[in-house]
Amino acid sequence: MKELQSALSTAGADGSKLVLLSAVGSVFCCFLDFIHFIRCLTDDRKGESARMAEAIRSFVNTFIHFTKPIIIAVNGPAIGLGESILPLCDLVWANEKAWFQMHYTTFGQSPDGCSMIMFPKIMGGASANEMLLCGRKLMAQEACGKGLVSRVFWTGTFTQDVMDHIKELASCNPVMLEKSKSLVRCNMRLELEQANERECEVLKKIWGSAQGMDSMLKYLQRKIDEF
Amino acid sequence: MKELQSALSTAGADGSKLVLLSAVGSVFCCFLDFIHFIRCLTDDRKGESARMAEAIRSFVNTFIHFTKPIIIAVNGPAIGLGESILPLCDLVWANEKAWFQMHYTTFGQSPDGCSMIMFPKIMGGASANEMLLCGRKLMAQEACGKGLVSRVFWTGTFTQDVMDHIKELASCNPVMLEKSKSLVRCNMRLELEQANERECEVLKKIWGSAQGMDSMLKYLQRKIDEF
Amino acid sequence: MKELQSALSTAGADGSKLVLLSAVGSVFCCFLDFIHFIRCLTDDRKGESARMAEAIRSFVNTFIHFTKPIIIAVNGPAIGLGESILPLCDLVWANEKAWFQMHYTTFGQSPDGCSMIMFPKIMGGASANEMLLCGRKLMAQEACGKGLVSRVFWTGTFTQDVMDHIKELASCNPVMLEKSKSLVRCNMRLELEQANERECEVLKKIWGSAQGMDSMLKYLQRKIDEF
Repeated sequence: MKELQSALSTAGADGSKLVLLSAVGSVFCCFLDFIHFIRCLTDDRKGESARMAEAIRSFVNTFIHFTKPIIIAVNGPAIGLGESILPLCDLVWANEKAWFQMHYTTFGQSPDGCSMIMFPKIMGGASANEMLLCGRKLMAQEACGKGLVSRVFWTGTFTQDVMDHIKELASCNPVMLEKSKSLVRCNMRLELEQANERECEVLKKIWGSAQGMDSMLKYLQRKIDEF
Repeated sequence: MKELQSALSTAGADGSKLVLLSAVGSVFCCFLDFIHFIRCLTDDRKGESARMAEAIRSFVNTFIHFTKPIIIAVNGPAIGLGESILPLCDLVWANEKAWFQMHYTTFGQSPDGCSMIMFPKIMGGASANEMLLCGRKLMAQEACGKGLVSRVFWTGTFTQDVMDHIKELASCNPVMLEKSKSLVRCNMRLELEQANERECEVLKKIWGSAQGMDSMLKYLQRKIDEF
Repeated sequence: MKELQSALSTAGADGSKLVLLSAVGSVFCCFLDFIHFIRCLTDDRKGESARMAEAIRSFVNTFIHFTKPIIIAVNGPAIGLGESILPLCDLVWANEKAWFQMHYTTFGQSPDGCSMIMFPKIMGGASANEMLLCGRKLMAQEACGKGLVSRVFWTGTFTQDVMDHIKELASCNPVMLEKSKSLVRCNMRLELEQANERECEVLKKIWGSAQGMDSMLKYLQRKIDEF
């Protein structure tokens, strides 16, 4: 998360017109390192839960405050925080083989990345809850139908298509791109900051509680039992 | 309405994790008893219009304030208030044979259940007005495409599918379910209460007016003529 | 723009129940007269940019404040401001051959007509940006899938279908139509006025700047080179 924040900080200040975020390989974004996180929590539950909540708060705020357009090219599965931040970006392009899932409630966590307010805005509350509460998996085309993804490209031409569309977009007047983004976002910044704050506050409480710890361990146990 | 409010009040206070609302038989929700209502209005227009508006206001507020997830299983046609409250619930599952319709304007009534603000949020203003102003009927799959319904099940397996999915959801940590719902809703409660207030105020005026009474009687006349 | 405002002003005050907006011929709405506008800007950049921004602000405000339902029948291509105001209207019916496009960024302009807040509300931010930033063209059926259009009619029966549906709508109680519209809109008026204000402020700055002028001339040059 810190590397990405640092890259965005550089891109925000240099002469670039926009930012393209993608991943190398077949996965776009996986969970955080769960085992490592639980180990840290075991050592210092209060401290670690506060640190992790603060890290997520700061990471999400970076997206909320970024003024240049961010284009996301989802090359493969997007799970958890990597999915929840999509609505904070400006264009979301997906490989037709990509899929999207949050299973927060299965391991007793509440959603992050302002997803609790952005997902209902995009697809309505009921469809949002299918993802947020039920952990429903959406394929790229379904996610496009629901407005989470704005364009789907064939797997074989994904990289080329993304580059072609980025070049076209980059030929626009950069001042217009930033002005357009600020017109869209100016009304929402405060609402998003507050949502981020609330979500991280709840996460800190969950991680800091015996019950939250227990939910995560039970989830791990189920995963192990499945093997 | 009072029975349902009482059931929700019990469910809100006992150990249950979530509420599943459905209906027995082939219909999910029909109109209120129109003939009975008109008879009451004829006896005491001012009093009855105020009582009915207050009953709806209180019923809708119960949904606005309920803190546990409400899952709606729409077994058949959902008409009027039974449809307009769907966006106040958390998951909306429908039998593929179910359909959705409001024909408020045809009998000279204005919408209720916060539908005037929730339907545009879910499907955009123009699609919302097709339902609210034009009384357009949506089949389950169309309602799913527009975000009013979050999942459609086959008629033959509807009951079983609903129970399977409810069991899965009920296995989640109940604190997370409530926290998630409160994160989604915390920003909207005041807006919803005010919308409910305004809608019921307008309904009271319509029912209390000679013109409103006249619209309802004309509607009944047309219905009788159709037979 | 002034003719349309004047017609709306008349319709708002007379006995009509609703307004139907359409166009004669094969196009619904094209760009403003670009060459003429650039010539005026060349003569008096500060004055003309202020005048044009004010004209758009006033035109868009007319739609924001209109209290009777406006039904739009999009007979053919809707480009620029003619598309961006669609979400300010109440029902949007399209000929299946109609298409929708804004290419503001290609000639260095920022969006207008409150589109920066209304398009994300209707289709989510990413899909909205495909149109607003990338100038993506939507065919009528796609626009219907995204909620911009609420109904698509076959080309052969378009005019007849529109008239049939308008007659049905016009048979409703006019008080209910206005009350319903005011219930939907009452929460949004201030937000829309402010968005309109901000958008026109940005447009004035762009048109009044050497850089903005340059973007428009470059766009014209590209168009000429294409021939």
